[in-house]
This record gives sequence, C-alpha cells and structure tokens, in this order.
Amino acid sequence: MGELGVDALLLSLGADLPWLTGYEAMPLERLTMLVLPADGDATMVVPQLEAPRVEPRPDVFSIRPWAETEDPVEIVAALVGARTQLAIADRAWATFLVQLQARLPKASWQVASNVTGPIRAVKDADEVAALRAASAAADRVADQLISGEIPLVGRTEAEVSADIGRRLRAEGHDRVNFAIVGSGPNSASPHHSAGPRVIERGESIVCDFGGTMNGYCSDITRTVFTGAPPSEFRDLYNVLHEAQAAGVAAASVGTPCEDVDGVARRIITDGGYGPYFIHRTGHGIGLEEHEDPYIVGGNCEPLAPGHAFSVEPGIYVEGKWGARIEDIVVATDAGPDALNTVNHDLAVVEA
Amino acid sequence: MGELGVDALLLSLGADLPWLTGYEAMPLERLTMLVLPADGDATMVVPQLEAPRVEPRPDVFSIRPWAETEDPVEIVAALVGARTQLAIADRAWATFLVQLQARLPKASWQVASNVTGPIRAVKDADEVAALRAASAAADRVADQLISGEIPLVGRTEAEVSADIGRRLRAEGHDRVNFAIVGSGPNSASPHHSAGPRVIERGESIVCDFGGTMNGYCSDITRTVFTGAPPSEFRDLYNVLHEAQAAGVAAASVGTPCEDVDGVARRIITDGGYGPYFIHRTGHGIGLEEHEDPYIVGGNCEPLAPGHAFSVEPGIYVEGKWGARIEDIVVATDAGPDALNTVNHDLAVVEA
Repeated sequence: MGELGVDALLLSLGADLPWLTGYEAMPLERLTMLVLPADGDATMVVPQLEAPRVEPRPDVFSIRPWAETEDPVEIVAALVGARTQLAIADRAWATFLVQLQARLPKASWQVASNVTGPIRAVKDADEVAALRAASAAADRVADQLISGEIPLVGRTEAEVSADIGRRLRAEGHDRVNFAIVGSGPNSASPHHSAGPRVIERGESIVCDFGGTMNGYCSDITRTVFTGAPPSEFRDLYNVLHEAQAAGVAAASVGTPCEDVDGVARRIITDGGYGPYFIHRTGHGIGLEEHEDPYIVGGNCEPLAPGHAFSVEPGIYVEGKWGARIEDIVVATDAGPDALNTVNHDLAVVEA
Repeated sequence: MGELGVDALLLSLGADLPWLTGYEAMPLERLTMLVLPADGDATMVVPQLEAPRVEPRPDVFSIRPWAETEDPVEIVAALVGARTQLAIADRAWATFLVQLQARLPKASWQVASNVTGPIRAVKDADEVAALRAASAAADRVADQLISGEIPLVGRTEAEVSADIGRRLRAEGHDRVNFAIVGSGPNSASPHHSAGPRVIERGESIVCDFGGTMNGYCSDITRTVFTGAPPSEFRDLYNVLHEAQAAGVAAASVGTPCEDVDGVARRIITDGGYGPYFIHRTGHGIGLEEHEDPYIVGGNCEPLAPGHAFSVEPGIYVEGKWGARIEDIVVATDAGPDALNTVNHDLAVVEA
C-alpha cells in the first residue's frame, strides 16, 4: 500500500476479504466492507444480522455491525475519514462505489487487486499443496470421464454436468464452481452452458470443470469423442495436443506470460487453425478461479516461482465441433510443474 | 430514462440484463455490458468466446464481440460517446466502473436500478403467476419439513440444507439460491450458513430456503422444534406468529412499506422481544431474491398493486435460540395476496 500510495483498502466481495480475515461476505444488497487503512487498525463493517457469522479476530480487525436503519456507506465513509487514495475490492458492487463516491468527493479510486494481486499471484508451499490436492481430485473425475465411467450418449449435457459436479464433491471439493459440457456443435462454444441437448454418438464433448477444495480452486478440461473420431478431428486434436504440451513446457520462470500464449498459438496457427483459437491461453488460479497472472498477448510480466495458472488452448469450428485441453501449472525454479496429469490423448468413449 | 435525465444505461451482472435481453452475463473478469442509449440503439459488448451463448435478438440489440487482446472498456466508452449521464448496473463489478470513469472523466454516474427498480418492482399478471408457481413449489418442500418427512435429528445442518436443495429442484426449481438451516444456538443467527453442527432433540431449527423457477424466485421460512418445545419458546413463537400474520394483513395497497414493518415490530416489541428482532421485516422479490420494495423503517413508498415482497419477522436470542416465519405476499386491489400458504403454527417434529 505504501509503494502504491494507497491510504486505505476497502474490501467486500471477492477473495481478498477471506484471504485477509477468514470471512467471506454475502453477495447481497446489505454492505459488508473491511476498511483497512495503511496507518490504522482494520474495521469490518457488517450487517447486524450477519455479525454472528463472523469469527472474531480481534488481533486482525474489529467488528462494526450496522442496524437496518443505519447507513453503512456513512459508516465506511467515517472510517475512511480524510484519507483520499482508496482501493476498492474489484468485485464490490458498483452501487456501493457510486454511493461512496458521493460521500467522499475528494477521493481517488483504484482497485484493490493493484495491492493484493501480485501478492496473491505468488503461491507459497502450502498454497501449492492445496492447489495440487484440488487438481488431483479433479484429475480423478477427469479419469472417470476419459475411461468411460461417466455415461454420455443418450444423456443431456445438463445431466452430465450435474454428474460431474457430484463427482467433484465426492472426490473432496467443498464447492462446484462450474462444469461446462459442450457436445457436438456446442463444443465450439468455449463457455457453453450445459443444457438440454442430448449427447449422441460421433460427437466431440468438451468438459471443463472445477471447484473449490480447502479454499483453493481446481480447473481442468478434457475432450472426449463418442465413438471413432473422423481423421479431420484427429488432425485438429493432434495440433491442439502439441500446442498445449508446448505451452506447458514453455512455462518456465522468467518467461513473459505472453510468450507462453505465443508458443501455443504459433503451433495452432502453423497447423492452420489460427482463426479458431479465439481466447487467451490461460489465467492464474488460487483462491479465485481466475486471477493474476493472465497468460495473454500483451502481458509482458515474467513468470515467477509460485505463479499458478492454466494452460488451455482450444480450437473451435463454429457449427461443427471444438476441442480444448487444460492443465494447471506452477512455475518453479526446477521448471514447469503440471498439477494435472491425466492422459492428454484424445479419449474415445463408446457410451 | 428521460424523466431521470439518464443518457445511457450500462447493464452487466444482475437481473436487468436478462430482463431486457434474455441474456445473463457470466460473473467473470471478462466484461459483458449492454450499452443502451436513450437516443439510440442498444449494443451488447460481450467476450468473443461467450458470444455463441448469446441468443441473437437483432430487434433488441446488436452484438459486439471483443477479442482477447481488445480492451472492452474502450469499446464501451466509444459506444457511450459524448453522453455524460450514465446509469450502471448495481451489481457490475467496481473494477469496471473504476476503468470506465478513467476513460469517461466527464460522466456523472448513478445506478441502473434508479431506472429499472420501480418498473421491475411492479409485477404484471404473468410475473405474479410465475412467483405463485415458485412459491407453491417451495410450499411443498416446507410441507415436507413441518410434517417430519425431512429427517433432522442426527443429521448435520449441511446435510439437511443439501436435502432441502434437492427437494426444491425435484419440485421444479431450476436453481437453488440458498437453504439456511440454523439449529439450536445457530437458529439465533439470521443468515447462518448451514454447517457441520449435528441437530439434536429439543432444539429450534430455522429453515429459510428458496430458488429460481422459470426466472422468478421463491423464498420461505418455517421454524420447527425437535421434540416438545418449552413454554418459553412457545411464548416467543406465539408473539412472532401474531406479528407475522399482522404484517401480512397490513400489506394493503397504499400502505407505506415502513408501516408494514412497524405493525409487525410493534407486536414483537409489545411482547417484550423488541431487541431480539434485529432485521427489517422484508424485501421485494422477483427476478432477484432481494429487490425493491424493501419493507424497512424509513421507506415511505406506498405499496402499489403488483408489489411482491416477503414478510418475515424473526426473534433471535443470542446463544440460545431463534425463530422466523416468512411468506411472500403480493399487494393487490383486493388486499394482500399471500403466495405461501403452508401452516404457520409451530411445527413439532419427532426425528
């Protein structure tokens, strides 16, 4: 905060608050906000009816419950006082920033991740262990998928998605964050929402799923084909497979993030699929599913030991089919440490 | 927008966007934003990889997909152009407002709910029908709870919460939004997060749950006691029961919202439990679980036909026990129309 000239952090929704205090704000219209001044003690402003949820940590923060007829924005503004350089939680609702700006007209605003992002991006050994455990649990579900244990043909995407979610929980996840199942032409929609489409034989199925386990996130993608894939799809997949492996191998300490993207993208472009790789290669992961560092063109930041992120190129042919392969990788002084180790070959399942 | 002098609405997370366009933005770091000028056509700025999710509605909006190396904030700023009176989605992430403010230094900001809130708060006949169907589905689960069909004693709160969630889905909900189960002393924490505590005999259990069905929300609370309740708890419950019924009866067209709160609160205060009723009496409900109108002291807005909201007083004795009763009610010219009709008596379950 001193380096950035930030007088106070104002934390609310998002992972910064639980990271620093152990308490996760409810995503509702009643404001929860930790006021953390650079030069003073931290105060958690919390709705009175939610105060019993907060585990007191008098060494870390004091609690200021607000009653229903009080104005929490006034309370936060009073705690901010004459400080003017403020950094607000990235995911705080805009309504609270609008209201705070009306009460604090002299303040300058930036996002809290300017302060917390670079710190949170570098995982210590305990955090890497937590990510590894979450990835191993996701791997077990991916293994069930590629081995054909999870029935696909004849079920809807939504049913398979719910099944994957149950398995993530059974393997130890506390929370399922998403379970994308895109079948047939839907596999060409990278963020497809699993829906009522019934999976048939002879289709590509992109399954991208993850959850939270002991506070840290998993995120893995495998693509399977129901029945024997045509050679055209095998060709596409082979290029993708090579690109993903090269991206992982390129993820060494000191390499700029955008170069990891570039390595994977060049192979896909050289293979003739450049226009079909329509997203960045990856994102950081930790307490949140997506956080710093982003593996994207334009991000010149060099990878540091402890950076954890996804490497997940994809190829998507609209209206026809698509494929994606994703692992979580940690940059270490000994080279890239891939946390997901499930087989990357094109999985063919019969049912 | 004309009345409020708003030049453009900027919609993102929250229900305003799906309400107007049918599309729900993903809650991620890639910006989705509908730019809806008062004097021009609407444009949906959406990440390229999520564009396939958007059902095109060329009569309503055009689509501007942005590629990973483009800056969506620049695109939104260009679409805003010289307009300066802007209203942003209440739940948009603060990070996007901070970035937009840097690009649009002459703009004045307010929240989109200034425009949309009063419109969305008044439900038409189809919306009331949808709320009624969702409430009826929640009622069926509440009936299973109070009749003892849902085992309680010996299970953890988390298990009961998951069970209630499954039953909400089985009764037709598309999504479970929350299932609070507060047992014993936890029943005194209004927003308790169902946890590992094992439910015992001789305890109060507050169950507050709801989900989304065909786009509209349900929300109901019933309190049950495992075994014969002591007379002290019966007394508390009787006062609460009377207060909740009086609150519902007071919810007529023309009555200020705060008076509905006042009627319920006075009965609880007169009964000697005033300090233990630590939250407002209710909140509006519709596409979102909590929306206008809020039934709270200080809200002088008179109820209008079609206003839909909860009436949910509670009494919470810290460290000991608590109780809450909640129904959804619609104000109509024929009087208050309670959508939840499950028995309000103190339910005693044996297991």
